[in-house]
Amino acid sequence: MKISINCDMGEAFGRWKLGPDEELMPLIDYANVACGFHAGDPSIMLRTIRLAKKYGVKVGAHPGLDDIKGFGRREIDVKPEELYAQILYQVGACKAILEAEGMSLHHVKVHGKLYFMMTKSEAVADAVVRAIASFKVPMFGLSGTLHETGANKYGVPFHPETFVDIDYSPEGQLQPVDFDNLVSPEMIKKRIQSLAETGCGIDNTGAPLPFLFAKQPKGGLSHIPEEAYTICLHGDMPSAMENMKGAREGINAAGVNL
Amino acid sequence: MKISINCDMGEAFGRWKLGPDEELMPLIDYANVACGFHAGDPSIMLRTIRLAKKYGVKVGAHPGLDDIKGFGRREIDVKPEELYAQILYQVGACKAILEAEGMSLHHVKVHGKLYFMMTKSEAVADAVVRAIASFKVPMFGLSGTLHETGANKYGVPFHPETFVDIDYSPEGQLQPVDFDNLVSPEMIKKRIQSLAETGCGIDNTGAPLPFLFAKQPKGGLSHIPEEAYTICLHGDMPSAMENMKGAREGINAAGVNL
Amino acid sequence: MKISINCDMGEAFGRWKLGPDEELMPLIDYANVACGFHAGDPSIMLRTIRLAKKYGVKVGAHPGLDDIKGFGRREIDVKPEELYAQILYQVGACKAILEAEGMSLHHVKVHGKLYFMMTKSEAVADAVVRAIASFKVPMFGLSGTLHETGANKYGVPFHPETFVDIDYSPEGQLQPVDFDNLVSPEMIKKRIQSLAETGCGIDNTGAPLPFLFAKQPKGGLSHIPEEAYTICLHGDMPSAMENMKGAREGINAAGVNL
Amino acid sequence: MKISINCDMGEAFGRWKLGPDEELMPLIDYANVACGFHAGDPSIMLRTIRLAKKYGVKVGAHPGLDDIKGFGRREIDVKPEELYAQILYQVGACKAILEAEGMSLHHVKVHGKLYFMMTKSEAVADAVVRAIASFKVPMFGLSGTLHETGANKYGVPFHPETFVDIDYSPEGQLQPVDFDNLVSPEMIKKRIQSLAETGCGIDNTGAPLPFLFAKQPKGGLSHIPEEAYTICLHGDMPSAMENMKGAREGINAAGVNL
Repeated sequence: MKISINCDMGEAFGRWKLGPDEELMPLIDYANVACGFHAGDPSIMLRTIRLAKKYGVKVGAHPGLDDIKGFGRREIDVKPEELYAQILYQVGACKAILEAEGMSLHHVKVHGKLYFMMTKSEAVADAVVRAIASFKVPMFGLSGTLHETGANKYGVPFHPETFVDIDYSPEGQLQPVDFDNLVSPEMIKKRIQSLAETGCGIDNTGAPLPFLFAKQPKGGLSHIPEEAYTICLHGDMPSAMENMKGAREGINAAGVNL
Repeated sequence: MKISINCDMGEAFGRWKLGPDEELMPLIDYANVACGFHAGDPSIMLRTIRLAKKYGVKVGAHPGLDDIKGFGRREIDVKPEELYAQILYQVGACKAILEAEGMSLHHVKVHGKLYFMMTKSEAVADAVVRAIASFKVPMFGLSGTLHETGANKYGVPFHPETFVDIDYSPEGQLQPVDFDNLVSPEMIKKRIQSLAETGCGIDNTGAPLPFLFAKQPKGGLSHIPEEAYTICLHGDMPSAMENMKGAREGINAAGVNL
Repeated sequence: MKISINCDMGEAFGRWKLGPDEELMPLIDYANVACGFHAGDPSIMLRTIRLAKKYGVKVGAHPGLDDIKGFGRREIDVKPEELYAQILYQVGACKAILEAEGMSLHHVKVHGKLYFMMTKSEAVADAVVRAIASFKVPMFGLSGTLHETGANKYGVPFHPETFVDIDYSPEGQLQPVDFDNLVSPEMIKKRIQSLAETGCGIDNTGAPLPFLFAKQPKGGLSHIPEEAYTICLHGDMPSAMENMKGAREGINAAGVNL
Repeated sequence: MKISINCDMGEAFGRWKLGPDEELMPLIDYANVACGFHAGDPSIMLRTIRLAKKYGVKVGAHPGLDDIKGFGRREIDVKPEELYAQILYQVGACKAILEAEGMSLHHVKVHGKLYFMMTKSEAVADAVVRAIASFKVPMFGLSGTLHETGANKYGVPFHPETFVDIDYSPEGQLQPVDFDNLVSPEMIKKRIQSLAETGCGIDNTGAPLPFLFAKQPKGGLSHIPEEAYTICLHGDMPSAMENMKGAREGINAAGVNL
């Protein structure tokens, strides 16, 4: 089993920066590039893609709700057919920049609130996955949500991802980020080592959390190659660089790097 | 020699309509679809592309300046490298919607003020054409401007287009549109017949205007297939439908339809 | 009892028109001017305000959700405190243009989905009304919703409005607009005459609908001057001009014009 | 003679921060609050205005070009009449938030490229100043540009400002910011002390630069109260806090604080 690191990148906007992309890029395996709807713009996408190329990082598109003012984190009542068009638009834009720069689209990871809307509404999930399917690449999605997304329905390979810089409850629920009490880089390292050795993470009580198996029991993983298991770190946390180093150390120590 | 009709389509935005796309589409050969920067949005692009498919109309991307409030008609001092990224973004978005709907990208036509910026600035032209080149499709451009655009430099086939619903001066300069004195559908028909028979249009004094040859003397047309000569009509003029019918009648009468 | 007509105006955006504002303006008493968030922009606001001035029409601000692509008609999960700031922003902008042109702000009418969000969420209503209160003008709101808006709480006079170009059910619920079966100008005229004579409109079964009294029983009208009862017509319906003429005829026939 | 400090504030946007507003605010006299067109949004304006109130800082509106993606720093060919409406809109929005929070609008300072467009085009200057005049507050503007702005024409008091964290040439021309060689906090302190003692700044050769008098010889200062002379520091420079402390020390040392 291998563990890879993916990170949301290119989340700046115009004059505004967000996250130390230049420093993080050498430490990750996959960059999810914001596509201009919740963050990013064409110039930032180009810059981010060139940076990924420099460090041999594979790039996925990171489409979101059309809500730059809300960073794609506010629920908006958008019709599924509009979401279908918006996903095609964003991913197509990202793909074209990649190909012009001699790279190719590796995957699609749906951003923020839109991802949670997929897990709650079959019509939303269907529209989004139908759009992703036309690109013939896998999607990255939250571990345990394969069935809600309906990726199977359109033959989209689903790579589960787990967060290690956010806490999960014992029931596997992601907890709100507490900025006064962030997960430590040491805990991140421990969680990754646990994952590598046992397939379990560590929940917010310190107990093992069986990510991969407990939540996808019904054969949902048939599409997933061994190397697919991926963890996500957030580049916009104040401790982003320390977290990333902790994660990379954990992966190296366990000898599960890609 | 054949003459085709191209028309800018999908120039609505959100709640707002512009032009009778549904009625015009059956009468045209090529639709230039706005890509959301100066007009249009993903849903309108999808709808327009489906409409084109229904009538067997080929679709080109119609990227413009990132200026929805100015409809891409105001000069903005954008860095060439940003324009490179913006063209990749817009055309890539359009191409992805086309391919998801079982169509393919036929050409790129640059919109409005950005096109004129290309003819004035080599750096702008270079950035835009370099982006277009990565899609390996021809570009449509104003007759007589091949050299300014630099399409040759990157091996982009250049299809010259002529307006027939706007006046040209005897010197070949496009005149501002006078909404109180629009070009009549009859004049449009006459101009097309003249073009088909003599290769000349009719200027605003009624004299022949040698489009194709007078302004591209240096072998610039080597890339152009016979069928390439195309006229453009504006779907957002009040008389758009009458103009289009006049143009189609002129083409049919001259027996030069595609 | 007097009956006035209010109409949403200035709902164009950039290059795009919406509704025959120039023709409608001479027939109305109050214009609700879109403030650039769901429709309109500063130039359109200025043009609309000058048009209102020309015909002696009083102007209210018509703030909405910050959602130009959705025309303010999609629910967005915005924090109440943000809405407070957004209402101040929009109404302040409108007021400044009015005052620069020698007019004054007459009222505030909240647009579209945001109004319905007010009636469903006390926190939203509170934030919006608190912002309106700082301008010391009345608000126009749907007849029967005084209590939901909480206008009383901040001392904002509430002028109830009724639609006559949309159907109400016998229970007083607004019905979705059926564009294939629009309310006729004759029915609009009849509804107004009924309203003038009996205080009741006509519901979608043809039966009287007791607007004013049935739905605001608890003394909610104490702030309302006699002239306050106002009907709203939609300028963006295809039959807008006929509807408006029907409404004006009904008011004139009943002798209840302002 | 007194010297005050003004600083552009509230230049964040949505999710993105810019500059240490919370730390800078206690050290300044005037905050120029971005109005949502080149930076800022209603929520950020509200937060910034509350922060200013907390520290007794007076607030001016800081309107700019309608260009969030270019931070108002790209020339856009906007019609003067549109600028007139846009200034009314932005300043009106800012004023309304101020008044709702119990403060009042102190001045208007035009942002970035729009200010330079004013100094180059009489039509632009006229439109902008005409809009400012309707608020009956002074404008802050670059020292030496009173006549270009035409503030006199509409009776708008003009408070000249000088930058001390950017270099001037001996001819009084602002130099491009060199991020590898920023002006030091010590130089900033020296420039302010020089200004306080001699009325001259220090140019990029180390020589005295006669700000106030050399460039406004024709009685242009008649409107200016003694306390009007103000220096501007940039909150978005990496060294913003050190610069601000240097400036405040210089003012205190010279005993010319407000």
